[in-house]
Amino acid sequence: LAQEERKMPYTLYYWPSIQGRGEFVRLALEDAGVDYVDIAKRNEDAAINTIVRLLDNKKQITPPFAPPVLKAGKLLIGQTANILLFLGARHRLAPATESGRLWTHQLQLTLADLVTEVHDSHHPIAANLNYEQQKAPARRRAADLVETRLPKFLDYFEQVLHANGSGWLVGKSRSYADLSLFQVLAGLRYAFPKNMRRLEKKHSGLVALYDRVAARPRLTRYLASPRRLAFNEQGIFRHYKELD
Amino acid sequence: LAQEERKMPYTLYYWPSIQGRGEFVRLALEDAGVDYVDIAKRNEDAAINTIVRLLDNKKQITPPFAPPVLKAGKLLIGQTANILLFLGARHRLAPATESGRLWTHQLQLTLADLVTEVHDSHHPIAANLNYEQQKAPARRRAADLVETRLPKFLDYFEQVLHANGSGWLVGKSRSYADLSLFQVLAGLRYAFPKNMRRLEKKHSGLVALYDRVAARPRLTRYLASPRRLAFNEQGIFRHYKELD
Repeated sequence: LAQEERKMPYTLYYWPSIQGRGEFVRLALEDAGVDYVDIAKRNEDAAINTIVRLLDNKKQITPPFAPPVLKAGKLLIGQTANILLFLGARHRLAPATESGRLWTHQLQLTLADLVTEVHDSHHPIAANLNYEQQKAPARRRAADLVETRLPKFLDYFEQVLHANGSGWLVGKSRSYADLSLFQVLAGLRYAFPKNMRRLEKKHSGLVALYDRVAARPRLTRYLASPRRLAFNEQGIFRHYKELD
Repeated sequence: LAQEERKMPYTLYYWPSIQGRGEFVRLALEDAGVDYVDIAKRNEDAAINTIVRLLDNKKQITPPFAPPVLKAGKLLIGQTANILLFLGARHRLAPATESGRLWTHQLQLTLADLVTEVHDSHHPIAANLNYEQQKAPARRRAADLVETRLPKFLDYFEQVLHANGSGWLVGKSRSYADLSLFQVLAGLRYAFPKNMRRLEKKHSGLVALYDRVAARPRLTRYLASPRRLAFNEQGIFRHYKELD
């Protein structure tokens, strides 16, 4: 690992076998065409051990609370939106102006809020209990998600797209916020296919953005590759028929 | 308002009568000694109308999803952590280096995650239902919060303080992350006095940080003034005996 890492600008630490929050970082790295070591691509035990060692390193002055974590030279950066803030500036994944940089980050943080709400729709009581142990409250929370919260968030991003007018969320080209919105839409389609069919009818801007992101050559290749893990019932976006 | 705003560098938009997420921005502005118009300090109806108009303005190219929102000249900045990122750079509330800036922001985002978990401990099902309509699941979620999540978060921040060694979270002076950690500790003491008495015994660094922040002259004055709203059962940090 040490030798491989020395050759690569970045190492991504994220749990193996789920897309999770790590996927927002992967999409940015893939779209920017940047090389990176992906710890999740090792065998599962080795990957988990590496991450646990990173989190448990008491000598670390800037310890991460949880993955994803990006190692960039001497920098160790945690929190998905923070990693994207960093990558945005380095790889033209966000405008260079202060206003554009803050606005892109603001959109990312709003997407992060939505991601947490989606996660909690199947885990409304505790992350360390199984879904089966919180099925009844999950039904109530998921009902509120699809009836109240999803429309509010999707209306918001549709409005931002409409107001900006370029087909992207910020300025005239894609930013990491567009890639993240794509990922959220992909996850929502997987988790709530019935509700998304209904909601997408009123959100043509979002549907067009999804297609525009998926058609970016590097992402098309990435999404078709084995590097793109499938959605599943261990991640953030889970399909439980009774919650849709 | 328009005339008053022209004289002031900042206007803060946040709901009146609760501290909420707006308080993290206030503490930063107060500690930096910056003048600002606080919309929440108008009469309640006027404040709410002003915020609703801001959120409903369809012509806004960078519409905020929710308050707090900070107006700074032509900039309109939403998302608490994003506002602090901006203020940190402008008012020396964070290091000027890239690594210090990212690390401070990472800590703030982790505090934001904790704040959401605290909120959801009394609202595990839906924000638009009353506490009384979700009391049973709130009991379960709050039990997990005080037994599992709070210790994990408090251990983490204690470890960061210890590793840094200056008594502050980042570098050798206070950053907005310290002010935010103070606010979280204040809120947790209000909401969970019994559990916090137990937990504080193992977190002497956090207790010392709380006292250090409260003793900053501008904050001492602010906290004793009527500008500091009291905690109450409409905000994020609520005291319900049955949840403690």
